[in-house]
Amino acid sequence: MKELLVLSADEFNLRISRFCSLLRQNGIDLAVVSDNASKYYLSGRVFSGWILISASAVVRYFVRRPVGLSGELVRYVRKPEDIPALLDDDSFVSISTIGFEMGVIPVNDFNRLSLLFPGKKLVDLSGVVRTARSVKTNAEIGLITESGVRQERVYRQIPRLYREGMSDVELQVEIERALRLEGCLGQFRISGGSMELFMGNILAGDNADNPTPYDFAMGGAGSDLSLPVGADGTVIRPGMSVMVDVNGNFTGYMTDMTRTFCLGRISEKARKAHQCSIDICNRLIEMAVPGVKASQLYEVAVVVATQAGLEDYFMGHHQKAGFIGHGVGIEINELPVIAPRSRDILAVGNVIALEPKFVIPGVGAVGIENTYVVEETGMRCLTNAPVEVTLLD
Amino acid sequence: MKELLVLSADEFNLRISRFCSLLRQNGIDLAVVSDNASKYYLSGRVFSGWILISASAVVRYFVRRPVGLSGELVRYVRKPEDIPALLDDDSFVSISTIGFEMGVIPVNDFNRLSLLFPGKKLVDLSGVVRTARSVKTNAEIGLITESGVRQERVYRQIPRLYREGMSDVELQVEIERALRLEGCLGQFRISGGSMELFMGNILAGDNADNPTPYDFAMGGAGSDLSLPVGADGTVIRPGMSVMVDVNGNFTGYMTDMTRTFCLGRISEKARKAHQCSIDICNRLIEMAVPGVKASQLYEVAVVVATQAGLEDYFMGHHQKAGFIGHGVGIEINELPVIAPRSRDILAVGNVIALEPKFVIPGVGAVGIENTYVVEETGMRCLTNAPVEVTLLD
Repeated sequence: MKELLVLSADEFNLRISRFCSLLRQNGIDLAVVSDNASKYYLSGRVFSGWILISASAVVRYFVRRPVGLSGELVRYVRKPEDIPALLDDDSFVSISTIGFEMGVIPVNDFNRLSLLFPGKKLVDLSGVVRTARSVKTNAEIGLITESGVRQERVYRQIPRLYREGMSDVELQVEIERALRLEGCLGQFRISGGSMELFMGNILAGDNADNPTPYDFAMGGAGSDLSLPVGADGTVIRPGMSVMVDVNGNFTGYMTDMTRTFCLGRISEKARKAHQCSIDICNRLIEMAVPGVKASQLYEVAVVVATQAGLEDYFMGHHQKAGFIGHGVGIEINELPVIAPRSRDILAVGNVIALEPKFVIPGVGAVGIENTYVVEETGMRCLTNAPVEVTLLD
Repeated sequence: MKELLVLSADEFNLRISRFCSLLRQNGIDLAVVSDNASKYYLSGRVFSGWILISASAVVRYFVRRPVGLSGELVRYVRKPEDIPALLDDDSFVSISTIGFEMGVIPVNDFNRLSLLFPGKKLVDLSGVVRTARSVKTNAEIGLITESGVRQERVYRQIPRLYREGMSDVELQVEIERALRLEGCLGQFRISGGSMELFMGNILAGDNADNPTPYDFAMGGAGSDLSLPVGADGTVIRPGMSVMVDVNGNFTGYMTDMTRTFCLGRISEKARKAHQCSIDICNRLIEMAVPGVKASQLYEVAVVVATQAGLEDYFMGHHQKAGFIGHGVGIEINELPVIAPRSRDILAVGNVIALEPKFVIPGVGAVGIENTYVVEETGMRCLTNAPVEVTLLD
């Protein structure tokens, strides 16, 4: 038998107390947590089943699979209908409002679970979960930091992984191998089912200007219409940029880092745009302290890009992304969102990826992306590979 | 501009007419399709948006992203609320029952879409979609066949990818690279959000007996509690089995194949169990003709395993899987399901993976898995790597 709960007692209490404080603020008496990413957050492991948490911080782990997990909060069930009889605490009796992760739970699963709670008011828990997870604990920041260190080690190998005549896909395969040998778990968690990506996005030349259906910052046609994003088999040639934005999940928590490479020189305009991306990051570092609006970061980024005369290329050319950054953690699309209409406000413990990128016709994508943790005094970078356009050799 | 619809006119008509026939059988007047896998099936590409199909086979593609798709059935929208004004056909007027993919669509997305159709009866479309997709067209079988050929090429390389002292993870990384260089897309589509796997499952020795939370046939502890399945870093040693069950998605449609490898000899019991897996496949091939119940295939497999005295090890040891096979196509968990309470009946055009596997304590997982297409006269195998336990060398 193994303990289900692998968080330390302090870490468990920290996460649950923050989560329950948000439940109470939102008038939710009971949370029904069903999403793998959220279960991992609230227990330290992924299991099949549900976590029920009362606003008074009574927690029960209802487990279907795997066999062999133990702990005083663990109750094995075969099906959701087994849950009500096992709600053996007074705090589960006097509930009137129940929250479900309506942003991710499928309708059929929700309908089945909702039958367990007749006459109760059922509300969306997604905001509570996303808000709770947007403020990382020190333990979580430690895992993200570790991912950043290992991701940086791989990025430093990239110039040596290139061989003359390689396509973007072939280079990506060698980077994937280097990532995996460094301990990358491969899994790239994205909240919701509509966005898909395998191990990251490598864009060579004008493929960067092919639009995708997905809500990522950059595009690419991809190799197949079943997964139309990223590398498309473009052979890497002098004068093209090669933007590398690949999976940083080494610990269950990921960093997000992008660097730009090239063969020979890229055009003056592309070099200027790359420098502008670095300038935007530096500018945002100066202003990003707790309490600043995420939308302000977006606006300043646009101003800097516009002042450089590069607004037509900023965040895409034919198709533009509507954000310049996003929270990152267990999933790649966490809060806060750095976008014009975002209502998020930077808080200590946020971990955000900033990716002010450009697509220059005839060259490709340029710019950088880093992952930062928001501290009392400002942002600290967790992804420290060299920022300059780097020669593949 | 690119045509959104990449299916040939014949292929489009074949899929839509089958789909609409199922709509009418189920009393559904209008289908609202939102899932990427289903949109790929009904158009030949993944895009962001929705497909609306009336039971009378009027089709509209409502596209949010990417920019630049064309076609007479294409309507660009910014948000779902833009849809009703664009329903420019009489067949969209006289509808009373609307189907949504309630098995996969999140509650919030469903609630927002449902507001577009006030006063209508909203029902589950999941069964229609899954049933339609379970009978593959010749074009789909062609794509699956191509995946099988390429997957087989990679499996034949596996003995040469092994190096002395390798762990299961290290061997998996080399297999992943070989898959990707052969054109594997990497993306491993699983319906629903609760199952997760990266590029497949490699199980060495007793790690095969570690249970997982996921509903796969085999387990493994994995390398991290955020993804507790598969290879766990076990160093491959003589006497262990190494079961390889990795991603066969080369074309948007996948095959599913498992083979067993070893260093030196594995125990007599393990060899016997491996032969029993082959025997079960052969036995099922004899009986699997159109019209046979999927549950019967399951029962016969259990009988053969039991007659061999191997029932304690069949489909897992500490934790057992509840099925011996499953449909495969765009996703890894399609219909029919080969399980004791399955109501599915084999039909011409089904593509199924059969995986009668054993976990032998002290040795590991043994057995094979193949993907078959059901034809008039029986099943034809699409995954033809050698079935014997193969030496890594």
